[in-house]
Amino acid sequence: MKKRAISTTLALVTLSSCVMASSNQANNAPLIIQQQGSFTVGGIVKTSAGNYNPRPEITIAKTDNNFIDVYQANINNGGQTLHGDHATIAYQIPVNSKALPLVFLHGAGQSMRSWQTTPDGREGWNNLFLRKNYSVYLVDQPRRGWSGRSTVDNAISATPDDQFWFAQFRMGEYPHFFKNVAFPTDKASVAQFFRQMTPNTGAFDEEVISASLDALFERIGHGILVTHSQGGSVGWLTGIKSPDKVTAIVAIEPGNFPFPQGEVPKPIESSFGGIAPNKVSKTDFDKLTNIPIIIYFGDNISDTPSHIQGEDQWRIRLALARQWADIVNKHGGDVQVIHLPTVGIKGNTHFMMQDLNNMEIADHLSNWLKEKGLDK
Amino acid sequence: MKKRAISTTLALVTLSSCVMASSNQANNAPLIIQQQGSFTVGGIVKTSAGNYNPRPEITIAKTDNNFIDVYQANINNGGQTLHGDHATIAYQIPVNSKALPLVFLHGAGQSMRSWQTTPDGREGWNNLFLRKNYSVYLVDQPRRGWSGRSTVDNAISATPDDQFWFAQFRMGEYPHFFKNVAFPTDKASVAQFFRQMTPNTGAFDEEVISASLDALFERIGHGILVTHSQGGSVGWLTGIKSPDKVTAIVAIEPGNFPFPQGEVPKPIESSFGGIAPNKVSKTDFDKLTNIPIIIYFGDNISDTPSHIQGEDQWRIRLALARQWADIVNKHGGDVQVIHLPTVGIKGNTHFMMQDLNNMEIADHLSNWLKEKGLDK
Repeated sequence: MKKRAISTTLALVTLSSCVMASSNQANNAPLIIQQQGSFTVGGIVKTSAGNYNPRPEITIAKTDNNFIDVYQANINNGGQTLHGDHATIAYQIPVNSKALPLVFLHGAGQSMRSWQTTPDGREGWNNLFLRKNYSVYLVDQPRRGWSGRSTVDNAISATPDDQFWFAQFRMGEYPHFFKNVAFPTDKASVAQFFRQMTPNTGAFDEEVISASLDALFERIGHGILVTHSQGGSVGWLTGIKSPDKVTAIVAIEPGNFPFPQGEVPKPIESSFGGIAPNKVSKTDFDKLTNIPIIIYFGDNISDTPSHIQGEDQWRIRLALARQWADIVNKHGGDVQVIHLPTVGIKGNTHFMMQDLNNMEIADHLSNWLKEKGLDK
Repeated sequence: MKKRAISTTLALVTLSSCVMASSNQANNAPLIIQQQGSFTVGGIVKTSAGNYNPRPEITIAKTDNNFIDVYQANINNGGQTLHGDHATIAYQIPVNSKALPLVFLHGAGQSMRSWQTTPDGREGWNNLFLRKNYSVYLVDQPRRGWSGRSTVDNAISATPDDQFWFAQFRMGEYPHFFKNVAFPTDKASVAQFFRQMTPNTGAFDEEVISASLDALFERIGHGILVTHSQGGSVGWLTGIKSPDKVTAIVAIEPGNFPFPQGEVPKPIESSFGGIAPNKVSKTDFDKLTNIPIIIYFGDNISDTPSHIQGEDQWRIRLALARQWADIVNKHGGDVQVIHLPTVGIKGNTHFMMQDLNNMEIADHLSNWLKEKGLDK
């Protein structure tokens, strides 16, 4: 088993702003934005039985602050609609933008804020890619963040679980950070990071989410889809739904991969919960062999089973990513798996787009896009 | 009782884009943004009893996709934190920005999208005020949108209620729009409008929300607070909490007003639910007499009781606004209530910042800011 020194504590590290200054050469030039705004895509309309009555008989007191009762009396008649399960998109188009925009989809428990900023206030990938002249479309998936209007009920539990996510997002073993971690470890930044989380307002549903992204590509035409974590599986489904419009897929530490029937590998064990590979039809799988794909994994991922949650959870996913890449490429596809430490980029957590070296990784991706001719 | 012709239906109106072109002279010049990003302010940390164990005994199968079970086993030990009840802020600072930024707080069932855009894709007040060189801070209040992480549990019900809101937001009497409505009435725009809504992820709490705004003003220094609807009451509380930093308050159709003890008027009756005036101490009330305040109300608000929900719901609130303004001004304050039709601006719904003439109203506000010397 891989042994890793974990020594940096929340309390001890106070130098993050110095680290920041040396890792990122911030660009202070203004952003010149030709157009920006937001809109929704996809979704369904749910209708209640009954007939809407705009002048219902309301028998309650007329003088109280009884808005909720009035609301209830009004909807009791039914015959009303609910527009839900859409995605919300915030977009910015810089002047002289490249032809292919980047579409960014967040992961579990997150929103489009994943891409906007960093916990210590440096620029996120939104700004960094605007500076590289890409148009940027940020997604809040159906039933998350701005897209909170769900067509199914949901209960939200205010259960303290920050430490679980600290482990799963591979910051370290709480309260210790990984020794080489490329993340701002000061208390204020860590609090900002935890406060990025936002819950599902309806059950997570890959079909609903990929349908909304399909509608987005229908609206904007071709584009490059960038996914994070749980969003990875949605990204593969979107590529299958819109193979002619999703021009490339960039997956940051995706959670699972769609294997073609007959070539599905065994589940991989972990003491922290295993992973059973996803399956799709060979016809659907083949669509992904026509799309250039790059998959990134960060640092502090173990080669062998580890007692540290983050090391072990991403060990099994990196292993599955490599198996999947081999199969896609065997069938004529173009998948690269980049394990960042092997290209000299160290210390990355599960949130590499927010890490202290997020510019370096943006540059790596930018070079790949250029290599594939996707930066025109 | 006031009688009003309501004849425009969803199906008949197809000319909204023409109306749009004549009401709004869109500015296509690029926006030049010196800085943009997002962050959170305020909030609390909730901690569970027990001791966090990063290496819990997990007895479930190691090979399944059993992430939820693993999560449950992990949090069962307790000793974890939840960072919640913060507000999330998206900001843009244009080059050569004015000294005082605008801080925008949404209303019930909405998010910062209220200010970003319009249902038919024209520019929202965010862009329009950036073009006037104001820095803009958009708020998702605690337990809404991006700030979904709540410290209290919540149940979200997917109850169809679009028609209730259509009435309450004073579009017309569903499916008919008010005859002169300054809102894009085509089907696609109306669907986009309904899809702006997003639910509470925890109980609405004015104290929690105003505390987060107080923290925002603590961070940014002086600013002009612009509220919408339910956000109005939060705005008054914020002015009371930060009277030295909230330099002015602009309230778009606020729902209620804080009267000083001893001068609280009677509740006002309505067939659609009445309104009982809010109360505050005289000391708190006096703080609002030092802040210039402008309050906007739109069109299709009845003078006398009406059988149309929107006409009647805003009749009682406009009446209360006038009573409140009189009392504040009697105590040396500076409150103006602008009922738009009386200054020649017609057809406005409850969402005047998104209406077809939203530029005209932005200009009106801009003139008031200039008149008060707040535009330096």
